[in-house]
Amino acid sequence: MKLLVLVKISQEMHKKRIERVQSVLEKKNLKGMIFFNTRSIFYLVGYHHIPTERPIALVVPTDGDVGAFVPYLEENYVKDTVALVDDVFSYFEYPDLEHPMTHFAKGLKERGLADKPLAADAPGAPGYWGYTGPLLKDIIPQAKITVLSDLIMDMRVIKDKEEIELMKESCRWGNFAHKLLQDYTYVGGSEIEVVNEACSEASRAMLKALGPDFKPYAGVLNAYAGYRGQIGKGSAIPHATTGNNYFRKGDTLVTGASANVYNYKSELERTMFMGEPTKKQEKYFAIMLKAQNASLAAFGPNVKNADVDKAARDVFKEEGVWDLVQHHTGHAIGMEGHERPFLDIGSKVVMKPGMVFTAEPGIYIPDIGGFRHSDTIVITEDGSEMITYYPREIEDLIIYE
Amino acid sequence: MKLLVLVKISQEMHKKRIERVQSVLEKKNLKGMIFFNTRSIFYLVGYHHIPTERPIALVVPTDGDVGAFVPYLEENYVKDTVALVDDVFSYFEYPDLEHPMTHFAKGLKERGLADKPLAADAPGAPGYWGYTGPLLKDIIPQAKITVLSDLIMDMRVIKDKEEIELMKESCRWGNFAHKLLQDYTYVGGSEIEVVNEACSEASRAMLKALGPDFKPYAGVLNAYAGYRGQIGKGSAIPHATTGNNYFRKGDTLVTGASANVYNYKSELERTMFMGEPTKKQEKYFAIMLKAQNASLAAFGPNVKNADVDKAARDVFKEEGVWDLVQHHTGHAIGMEGHERPFLDIGSKVVMKPGMVFTAEPGIYIPDIGGFRHSDTIVITEDGSEMITYYPREIEDLIIYE
Repeated sequence: MKLLVLVKISQEMHKKRIERVQSVLEKKNLKGMIFFNTRSIFYLVGYHHIPTERPIALVVPTDGDVGAFVPYLEENYVKDTVALVDDVFSYFEYPDLEHPMTHFAKGLKERGLADKPLAADAPGAPGYWGYTGPLLKDIIPQAKITVLSDLIMDMRVIKDKEEIELMKESCRWGNFAHKLLQDYTYVGGSEIEVVNEACSEASRAMLKALGPDFKPYAGVLNAYAGYRGQIGKGSAIPHATTGNNYFRKGDTLVTGASANVYNYKSELERTMFMGEPTKKQEKYFAIMLKAQNASLAAFGPNVKNADVDKAARDVFKEEGVWDLVQHHTGHAIGMEGHERPFLDIGSKVVMKPGMVFTAEPGIYIPDIGGFRHSDTIVITEDGSEMITYYPREIEDLIIYE
Repeated sequence: MKLLVLVKISQEMHKKRIERVQSVLEKKNLKGMIFFNTRSIFYLVGYHHIPTERPIALVVPTDGDVGAFVPYLEENYVKDTVALVDDVFSYFEYPDLEHPMTHFAKGLKERGLADKPLAADAPGAPGYWGYTGPLLKDIIPQAKITVLSDLIMDMRVIKDKEEIELMKESCRWGNFAHKLLQDYTYVGGSEIEVVNEACSEASRAMLKALGPDFKPYAGVLNAYAGYRGQIGKGSAIPHATTGNNYFRKGDTLVTGASANVYNYKSELERTMFMGEPTKKQEKYFAIMLKAQNASLAAFGPNVKNADVDKAARDVFKEEGVWDLVQHHTGHAIGMEGHERPFLDIGSKVVMKPGMVFTAEPGIYIPDIGGFRHSDTIVITEDGSEMITYYPREIEDLIIYE
């Protein structure tokens, strides 16, 4: 029975990603590539793990089995659950009497790779959680290492159909969490309590609805909607952090909602008000919405990223509020909250079908608050599709007592 | 009025940290240091921020004001809340028409630093969330850059009194969350629902108890206790990840609990059983506890890290279960979940007062489960102090229907 809702990337698609890497390597006459980046490893073979000081590497040869080099405590897990990795080799511990990278060098030698021209996504394993160790060129000096740090990040720019489906599923649960957030917010309420309630309920529902194939990689809260400190004056700080905040009558609120589906995300943000907005709040809201609408109208294939940013900037300038702007119009999104390319006047990128962006021009007024919606937009063959669908008009975003 | 509970590092202590950096720089005849690492910046001045593709740097000159180079959207926040930063300089956006690092070079020049010998914690801003940019040596070629990547990580090895007090506070809330977790776990229950309930209640209580000075940097869940997939067979995988799991009678469970207090953490883990344990579960539990006790007895100043690991290894070998071991005895802990140095047979480190470690030897049997407690231990002048205090004996760790 095929699931009606996609909750993971198919093995076929993972295989295609590996083949794409192999074809890049072949063109460069390289015999394999070493990946240390946790997210790149997940992208290629669907191996989700907790990065620690213990180095982990995926080895993709142009010819031969895909290998994973892992600490012993990961070995069984990889063997049991990562179908595309046929060759697991491990070391006991870090630092241990012999450094893990020494074992890695031996493993590469046994596989006939230690003296071949190879690519790697970094010169060595990342210095995570106190790890330190030699570079690849020091452990396999006969292999000429070409560092291709951006290969996977660049592959991720154009999303395939499955990725877009997962992001749409993310939108559904972000939307549900956001609805609960709006319903549960009240004058006198505490930010953390309200957010906690909305996220818990949405996450539980998500788990039940998506069934046993869904992997809650985000831990306890896979559906999320909250304020991240953007309450009242805090909303005037675009990157505020959660505080010990309470809702008061008159507050401008800025929200953020998303959900993690096989590590894919989406972005939904809304400007809301605690009670009937003042004339000033209404005015700034209207300008923000006009700027967002202008940017939304500009999205499409063959459009310059810079022109979408310009569409929003032009509205802010026309309305005489350019001095209230603190950031560009948006960014790409996928497995990370922000990804390249950016909707920025300085971007040289031209949009292509399969790119996914946020549209979130904003203005910030210290005593009144922040005004920003964010929606997630997929570039299609003939235009664009907004995959978030929460109401955007002011009358739907007022919280009455 | 002085708060009875410490919820943040004092300005005096932050100042001392900066002075310590300055004194290292002076000894090396360097005129300042540039920090890109989010955690190092927080350690030095208490500036907590969300890292994005927009580069952020802290500049600590040996002579002159501490400076922060930030994107415009962070400027007001830093000015308003980070007392030790007197000099905030900003750029509008990334990528923008002019790269942020060009602005940074100008700012360093204006401050008389661009042609001075400087240290930095990395050759350039990290490639986070799609960022790419030039190295420091390319933007300020006349400044000879010395990369001191480990300076702050090494300073963090010995915790001061305030850090230990924050970690003790973390233990209190981890302990409370763990008690709720044990109370709320039941046969047929869902991992996510039970964990969610325990974490939510503990986090709300923590917020109310610690008052408005407490900053909930972890977001919605600042107190945490959960299973991370370590339920039944999943408990035999030390680094399992949360799944769509249900509790069944007979399950071996491995927990993890902590709380975030001013970004400081602690670690509490327990092996528990769903119902009366079998003889085999009892046997492996007893061996694990014996090994943990042996390691706990070994902690103290001037003791080699390797010897604490050896104490636990010896027990496992004597008991004939060495083949069930998958990792070393523990790691340092503080602002990160794992920190250097490690309790590992290969460690060259000798313990000093102020070091804080986890003690968590474990054994793993595929069909029966994992057996691991973890406690957090502070090395004192004359011995060691266990700052976690949850019951460790089997009779307190059985969940009856």
